[in-house]
Amino acid sequence: MRARKPASQLKEIPAAECWELLGRHDMGRIAIVVDGKPQIFPVNYGLRGTVIVFRTAAGTKLAYAPQSPVAFEVDEYDASAGAGWSVMVQGFGRDVTEAADDFSWTARGARVHPAAPGDKLHMVAIDPTHISGRRFGPANAGTGSETG
Amino acid sequence: MRARKPASQLKEIPAAECWELLGRHDMGRIAIVVDGKPQIFPVNYGLRGTVIVFRTAAGTKLAYAPQSPVAFEVDEYDASAGAGWSVMVQGFGRDVTEAADDFSWTARGARVHPAAPGDKLHMVAIDPTHISGRRFGPANAGTGSETG
Repeated sequence: MRARKPASQLKEIPAAECWELLGRHDMGRIAIVVDGKPQIFPVNYGLRGTVIVFRTAAGTKLAYAPQSPVAFEVDEYDASAGAGWSVMVQGFGRDVTEAADDFSWTARGARVHPAAPGDKLHMVAIDPTHISGRRFGPANAGTGSETG
Repeated sequence: MRARKPASQLKEIPAAECWELLGRHDMGRIAIVVDGKPQIFPVNYGLRGTVIVFRTAAGTKLAYAPQSPVAFEVDEYDASAGAGWSVMVQGFGRDVTEAADDFSWTARGARVHPAAPGDKLHMVAIDPTHISGRRFGPANAGTGSETG
């Protein structure tokens, strides 16, 4: 079964296109480390430049994302086409709810619309240090990143 | 904008239903910790009992998941319905490619069909320690977990 798509190709996605992909989506997952152990949470996010911003209530994300290394991931997979891509951002979390620095001001300009209910009064941003992405699919599909 | 779905409700998903959801899907994301920093990777997985199994080649996942705390997440979101759910498993990674213990034998029985190309000769399993899930949506939708 593992060889059923012999024409599929795996390619790195250039950084600029990774950011474009993040800009066209609004749901991803953040990974944080709690007591040495990773946890993953889906979040609706907004993008302002290269700053990822999400809203949250008091809880694990707010307690452990700020001032800590985090990862953020967005992906898409089309089973019928046998094609997919994923982008991962690594960086540091920052609570930008009220801080007056430039980074926080910029981050608060992101439009974020949480789908899940509940008051989410805090804004957490990811200050990116690294972005990477991969795409796979039939050799003649998913073009547009072929130069990478 | 944040109050546009006032009827939406957020509910915990009981553990048994979390496992059922994992059994009905085959794509999730694993988070691992590398040098104190989290990373997230999408993987196709199989489930054998309560053991999550994925295939991988030599690389970050194989280097850092075994013998280490990991998290695994599956989610689904229907924007038109304003409904979604997510399940997170926390546990420890184990390289079950060749080990002769009962856990590894069981794990190797999982059917895993990676969508991404490339030889993935190693099987990594997640020995679960905790599972949790949440569901949200209109008050009259997504029932079946209402007893939780």
